[in-house]
Amino acid sequence: MSEEAVHVAVLGATGAVGKQMLETLDRHNFPLASLKLLSSKRSAGKTIEFRGQTYTVEEATPESFDNVDLALFSAGGSVSKALAQEAVNRGAVVVDNTSAFRMDPTVPLVVPEVNENELQNHNGIIANPNCSTIQMVAALEPIRQKAGLKRVIVSTYQAVSGAGNDAVDEMYEQTQQILNKEPIDPQVLPVGSDKKHYQIAFNAVPQIDVFQDNGYTFEEMKMVNETKKIMNDAELSVAATCVRLPVETGHSESVYIETESADLTAEQIKELMTEAPGITLQDDPSQQVYPLASDAHGKEDIFVGRIRKDLDDPCGFHFWVVADNLLKGAALNSVQIAQSLLKMGLLQK
Amino acid sequence: MSEEAVHVAVLGATGAVGKQMLETLDRHNFPLASLKLLSSKRSAGKTIEFRGQTYTVEEATPESFDNVDLALFSAGGSVSKALAQEAVNRGAVVVDNTSAFRMDPTVPLVVPEVNENELQNHNGIIANPNCSTIQMVAALEPIRQKAGLKRVIVSTYQAVSGAGNDAVDEMYEQTQQILNKEPIDPQVLPVGSDKKHYQIAFNAVPQIDVFQDNGYTFEEMKMVNETKKIMNDAELSVAATCVRLPVETGHSESVYIETESADLTAEQIKELMTEAPGITLQDDPSQQVYPLASDAHGKEDIFVGRIRKDLDDPCGFHFWVVADNLLKGAALNSVQIAQSLLKMGLLQK
Repeated sequence: MSEEAVHVAVLGATGAVGKQMLETLDRHNFPLASLKLLSSKRSAGKTIEFRGQTYTVEEATPESFDNVDLALFSAGGSVSKALAQEAVNRGAVVVDNTSAFRMDPTVPLVVPEVNENELQNHNGIIANPNCSTIQMVAALEPIRQKAGLKRVIVSTYQAVSGAGNDAVDEMYEQTQQILNKEPIDPQVLPVGSDKKHYQIAFNAVPQIDVFQDNGYTFEEMKMVNETKKIMNDAELSVAATCVRLPVETGHSESVYIETESADLTAEQIKELMTEAPGITLQDDPSQQVYPLASDAHGKEDIFVGRIRKDLDDPCGFHFWVVADNLLKGAALNSVQIAQSLLKMGLLQK
Repeated sequence: MSEEAVHVAVLGATGAVGKQMLETLDRHNFPLASLKLLSSKRSAGKTIEFRGQTYTVEEATPESFDNVDLALFSAGGSVSKALAQEAVNRGAVVVDNTSAFRMDPTVPLVVPEVNENELQNHNGIIANPNCSTIQMVAALEPIRQKAGLKRVIVSTYQAVSGAGNDAVDEMYEQTQQILNKEPIDPQVLPVGSDKKHYQIAFNAVPQIDVFQDNGYTFEEMKMVNETKKIMNDAELSVAATCVRLPVETGHSESVYIETESADLTAEQIKELMTEAPGITLQDDPSQQVYPLASDAHGKEDIFVGRIRKDLDDPCGFHFWVVADNLLKGAALNSVQIAQSLLKMGLLQK
């Protein structure tokens, strides 16, 4: 076993994101000394194949984290609140993919392409941002570095897999029912725990997560607050409208920005995107080249296109950004955080 | 026959919009002296039932418009360019639902709730605006009247029926193929005549109509230019990103606006919408009440909700507007123009 190899636990291993975390650890040859698969009581006992070995998923308890160096959490906010500090107390570093600690000022909220250095300040827990935030800030950062950033207005086109496996099942089942002209019975979307449920098949639902008192949804406020925190700019103006679509995987976003400088051109932004880590430019209107959710599914990169200057504001630009919400939006970003911790010597106790 | 009854021709009677025009004329008890159903050569000879009578669709020629008072055109821009003036020369008033004459300075571009008085200036042809423009300007107008309007940024979520019957058929067929895990073969969307075609089922495609040299699509430029013309304000800043979704009927729009005055509140906008003609307010986050394409399908009104103030700009507001793109977005608005012409005495020769 290499000195660098890491004892890893994945909490939420049976979920949509957990599955992608295991595949990403494998694809990236993450140096595993051992692997422990954990879940809530409901899913404990299931078995999962990884690198030719069969693992039985165990119910997560505080003791599960004894001798764990790195714990990747993705089992819901309440599980994170109950167990993250327990894991830290036992010597693990937690990368948490829920919203539980994202706005905690003592917890770094990290997209490695944007603010990897914040990892230096971790106290055991690092938060992985919301899926819709990650792909946007990664595309914004090269622009901000070049020309500053005053304002962001985003309208999202989000996939159902962001709401979990049950939402994906509901979308496909409901779609077949509508094609068959059978009645539908929505139970999961837009928010499983909310009062009402609406048709997602052949529809566009302007609610992701629950409503806040200010009329914005929690998802929209995540995009607002997390973007400011990750970019370390409380003055940055951010507004979001978040919409769920009948797409399995791949969030798309229509983004309007205003830069500080009026000197930037759309061509320069295209060059910035070509050079930026983790981003692929797909932008050639003459050949109908632009990002599509159907193309992004299963890919690690963030795809940016439709970059064009606003017709009136010399500091204004519009673009379209698409990424696999389970990969860069969740599992991949968590694994990249773990890789950065390893590279920066921040996993050793 | 009443003195007021009108000799009407519907050109494009076999299309998705033409079908809705007939149903709308019937539903509104439009005073018909006679009805003539016209189409391109391809669809001529088909029969259509209307008020218990069977009509055979005739191929449109210049002579088709002899003795016609009102001609509702919806058979494509090239047909309108070839025949609209011929119809006018024969004494008809043409309400044209294509983009052929919309930006012609001698042709009024009318949404009756916004600029009915422009009808006074018609020279025989009146243009019906683009579907995505109509529902937006109708929602903007009460706000502009109250507080002025400086800026509009819209991201659309548009239904496939806006691209015609073939697009609807393609969406449903492709959806079933994907559910069956069969290969798909896109031929129609995003634009039938364009070089490439993409998957629409379970996807979001950021192209409606063909690209212009400035990087915007023609659909986006329609929203920009038509909004300025209808609102008679060349200084109004408008930007659009238009996206096609796997929805049969019902365009949704995420709209950001800036008013001239900083005094307006979201509550006041809700009141304005309650009083505005042709608009239904659906806005109660506490009860998850907001407009949905699935609810708007088949309804005449424009539905507005998710109205909230921007978090930073005191003049900024966000809202969500949904309408049936074949009704208020096309057929209904054309029939309403005809009703206004009748009411204003502008159909008589």
